[in-house]
Amino acid sequence: MRRRIRTDLALEVRESFPEDDVEIKGVVLTEEYDEKNKIKVSTVEIKDDRGSRAMQKPKGIYITIEAPSLAESDEDYHKPVSDEIAKQLRKLAKEYNNEGVLIAGLGNREVTPDALGPQVVDNLFITRHLIREFGDSFKEKNRLGSVSAISPGVMAQTGMETQEIIKGIVERTKPKLIIVIDALASRSVSRLNTTIQLSDTGISPGSGIGNNRQALNEETLGVRTIALGVPTVVDAATIVADTLEKYMEGGGFSEDEIFKFISEVNGSQVENMFVTPKNIDESIDRISFTISEALNSCFAQH
Amino acid sequence: MRRRIRTDLALEVRESFPEDDVEIKGVVLTEEYDEKNKIKVSTVEIKDDRGSRAMQKPKGIYITIEAPSLAESDEDYHKPVSDEIAKQLRKLAKEYNNEGVLIAGLGNREVTPDALGPQVVDNLFITRHLIREFGDSFKEKNRLGSVSAISPGVMAQTGMETQEIIKGIVERTKPKLIIVIDALASRSVSRLNTTIQLSDTGISPGSGIGNNRQALNEETLGVRTIALGVPTVVDAATIVADTLEKYMEGGGFSEDEIFKFISEVNGSQVENMFVTPKNIDESIDRISFTISEALNSCFAQH
Amino acid sequence: MRRRIRTDLALEVRESFPEDDVEIKGVVLTEEYDEKNKIKVSTVEIKDDRGSRAMQKPKGIYITIEAPSLAESDEDYHKPVSDEIAKQLRKLAKEYNNEGVLIAGLGNREVTPDALGPQVVDNLFITRHLIREFGDSFKEKNRLGSVSAISPGVMAQTGMETQEIIKGIVERTKPKLIIVIDALASRSVSRLNTTIQLSDTGISPGSGIGNNRQALNEETLGVRTIALGVPTVVDAATIVADTLEKYMEGGGFSEDEIFKFISEVNGSQVENMFVTPKNIDESIDRISFTISEALNSCFAQH
Amino acid sequence: MRRRIRTDLALEVRESFPEDDVEIKGVVLTEEYDEKNKIKVSTVEIKDDRGSRAMQKPKGIYITIEAPSLAESDEDYHKPVSDEIAKQLRKLAKEYNNEGVLIAGLGNREVTPDALGPQVVDNLFITRHLIREFGDSFKEKNRLGSVSAISPGVMAQTGMETQEIIKGIVERTKPKLIIVIDALASRSVSRLNTTIQLSDTGISPGSGIGNNRQALNEETLGVRTIALGVPTVVDAATIVADTLEKYMEGGGFSEDEIFKFISEVNGSQVENMFVTPKNIDESIDRISFTISEALNSCFAQH
Repeated sequence: MRRRIRTDLALEVRESFPEDDVEIKGVVLTEEYDEKNKIKVSTVEIKDDRGSRAMQKPKGIYITIEAPSLAESDEDYHKPVSDEIAKQLRKLAKEYNNEGVLIAGLGNREVTPDALGPQVVDNLFITRHLIREFGDSFKEKNRLGSVSAISPGVMAQTGMETQEIIKGIVERTKPKLIIVIDALASRSVSRLNTTIQLSDTGISPGSGIGNNRQALNEETLGVRTIALGVPTVVDAATIVADTLEKYMEGGGFSEDEIFKFISEVNGSQVENMFVTPKNIDESIDRISFTISEALNSCFAQH
Repeated sequence: MRRRIRTDLALEVRESFPEDDVEIKGVVLTEEYDEKNKIKVSTVEIKDDRGSRAMQKPKGIYITIEAPSLAESDEDYHKPVSDEIAKQLRKLAKEYNNEGVLIAGLGNREVTPDALGPQVVDNLFITRHLIREFGDSFKEKNRLGSVSAISPGVMAQTGMETQEIIKGIVERTKPKLIIVIDALASRSVSRLNTTIQLSDTGISPGSGIGNNRQALNEETLGVRTIALGVPTVVDAATIVADTLEKYMEGGGFSEDEIFKFISEVNGSQVENMFVTPKNIDESIDRISFTISEALNSCFAQH
Repeated sequence: MRRRIRTDLALEVRESFPEDDVEIKGVVLTEEYDEKNKIKVSTVEIKDDRGSRAMQKPKGIYITIEAPSLAESDEDYHKPVSDEIAKQLRKLAKEYNNEGVLIAGLGNREVTPDALGPQVVDNLFITRHLIREFGDSFKEKNRLGSVSAISPGVMAQTGMETQEIIKGIVERTKPKLIIVIDALASRSVSRLNTTIQLSDTGISPGSGIGNNRQALNEETLGVRTIALGVPTVVDAATIVADTLEKYMEGGGFSEDEIFKFISEVNGSQVENMFVTPKNIDESIDRISFTISEALNSCFAQH
Repeated sequence: MRRRIRTDLALEVRESFPEDDVEIKGVVLTEEYDEKNKIKVSTVEIKDDRGSRAMQKPKGIYITIEAPSLAESDEDYHKPVSDEIAKQLRKLAKEYNNEGVLIAGLGNREVTPDALGPQVVDNLFITRHLIREFGDSFKEKNRLGSVSAISPGVMAQTGMETQEIIKGIVERTKPKLIIVIDALASRSVSRLNTTIQLSDTGISPGSGIGNNRQALNEETLGVRTIALGVPTVVDAATIVADTLEKYMEGGGFSEDEIFKFISEVNGSQVENMFVTPKNIDESIDRISFTISEALNSCFAQH
């Protein structure tokens, strides 16, 4: 159940439970609201295996920052959001002390809604090579933290799993912290480009718990790994299914029946389709800049 | 009627009539099939005002080339498609005799499925300035036709209607033929990136007939104008509506009721959303190259 | 004389006169220095035909802003430079009152040091279409000025003179002011990416005075035209010639003899070569952002 | 001696010896000329330490393909050049048998003459992930070789040495052959974009022999490593020095004296400047396509 509706947001998984206000065992939800800046921060903590099974996500902390005005082009607004991201990043980074962070911008630079990761990396202040060249006194004097970064591309471009590439680089360059930036899929169009999810669980492409073959997390990489993502697309089949489900409400159809019907009408290609806004280029430009600012202030120059 | 379901393909409008095999007055459909290369060519001719009203498209010839293998990466396949495009272009260009063609690549270079036009222009062999510099004997000797091109960008980038820009350029540079390249919306995901539509009616953004304010056609530009488009997206609302309609079949719902319901479930943002395949970057690269080759062989070097 | 040494900077032409501190008839030079921000502003005014002949530039005002720290990545520094550019722009724009400015980003987006113009345009806040859609009260309420923009590409890409394209667009869209942004050639590597030249004479590609065939200026476009340029390259032949000349000093060689010798050693290709720094991508990113900010504050939202 | 004149071409080092037709001990030069296609292939073999010291390059084979017409846009011409590259690649790859090649596109995608490597990678047919998904019978049936690829970016973008990144990826993905593509510096403008150098020595950034810290070769990567490079720039100081030297001929100046003089005239920035042609974007597009075709025919589908 709930298998085929795709969302990368823990908050949406939590919301999908009908018992919206009762408690799910092993899952704690807390919320804060910054009235002035209209920023809502929700924290979903999955505390044990029971919660993990219910949520179909690994144990850990999932922080969602919702900032509806991110969709607008008002530049003044971006500083508070950037500050909030930096604050939550520091919380998740815990005892990290500027010894060396590797920031990986996942995704395909050539497909606009998937270019978030590479565009964040393009705007980063990179320092690791400077510190290695000019030494620790240079680092101290300029209050620098060591930052390296890579945009590895996607498997269709490299022929390699992202995990193989990142793991190889981590083993050679030995960062003390990894930040993985990626575009996500949400269930709802209203969340696109206005929501940022941070998590200390890393990224588990595909079906979630149990499958570590492609995961980028502390277990597979050997280093604390924070994931930072923004939903920029909705799966095409999901948006159709959600609408149909609403229409059929009470009809007693299973999710499988609904998806089978969608494939019959639209052909199987619909499974490799995504939905994204027409002005996605502007959104990606703005949000990647906001995230880069957060990362720069957090890790490069402090 | 049929107002809100969006398609830019005349062939799909024709197909949408229930009386699929009876004749629509004023509209003639002919079909050819190239067995060997698996290329189907359908020609819809709208002959009079009655046909124009029924089809909600201007009078003229609409040629659709369907080549399912365009979706694959087999490069050998592209030559026959490119040749077919060139053949149909020559047919529509009529008595044009290499005196000067302006090729306009519409669309937003920064949004992958909308980048078709600019990418076609990037691959063109541009000759107008060479002929002006080296003269007619140079033109004859090298069997050149005069080709100029522009990728004007979209209104959000320029603040200007595309018509204002193209019309201004046409008035100064006086081409004898205009080709307008654009990404289109189709109704069905199976047509994406496998279909090419050519038409001697130019482009009428928005609602079709009657509104010339933004149109790019012979009437507004003063020069024969051929439109060449490829469906690269489906409107998100259209894909949902089509599925719902199929489900509700016989329920007696009007299109308006269906779209109202979709907005209620998904919010009004869904109207500015499109659906496109995950590997759209590869499709755009391939198809824009195929189209450029057709244009080069047709107009630049003959 | 002085024909083959190429510089687009009026200040460098002025400096090239041996009589550095005597006055050239018809040319007035004034200088200001902002100690705090280390910004030097030099104004060369060419007042009459005699000055124009001596300087080989059209009559008018040439303002040069020199800000050595532009070459550094310190972001705090860019605000004062941006403010200075805006101040000088307002001075040259004279009685312009937000009725409509067209900003043209010249140059080739695909060649890094030539991408300055297109990159400035990419960062502009475009408003003309919004004002046309939402009306004058919207314009007043948001304190907007009408801004449109275009990056036409270079002749090898379009087959058309830039003048033909811009003139056509101006005639259709009727802006009240034109700003032309372009990458320039300077004589000295130390000026690259640290200098901004503004002028009310527009741009005269090629040899300067007398030749209006390709010029973008008030006379050819019919609207007040301000040029804003940044030297991002040095002509390869110029850098070699300058070094040789210094070496041969007093040898009594003419410029023609020097250039002939350079061609003999390097082949004639050297005439189509330019010199640019290895980190030109970072400089172009930074400076184009600084210039966009100036233009946005000056013309879009005031 | 010869230290400061920069060239990455073994052929140019060989030519720089005054005793042009006498033999340098330990260095063997052979030449072939394809009259019909106007392609010249020169092979410099450095056979021992003496040759290595004289040439200031590691022992190994350096093949230079000179194809002047590469600078022209005649597409028909590219097939013979592509075939020649493939032939020489096969020679250097020796007993490699399609078990897995990693192709690394070095250089900065954002600086046009340095974008050769990334652009070659963009055009590759990537197969490793397909073979892993569909198995050996799929590989055999389609006559595929396993190809993976990466464009790691430059140190200013990643903070990491290219060697660290490639070595990490090699250790995880275990290719049997590595091809490293890079833009090179030549000494002469006439060689730019018309010359391709292949070598079985890999790449030794910086000063050449003895320094393995950053080298990408069989010794440091543990796998046979072929370098493929195209000169796209000339060092600015080198072009000035070469001209000056010619002028001063017989004046008895040392290279150090000449470079000191150049720095005095131009400032020290000149050391980080390069010279490149104005139409470098077209050259890079064309040559990277030609090289990709050679790599695809050699390694992806055979």
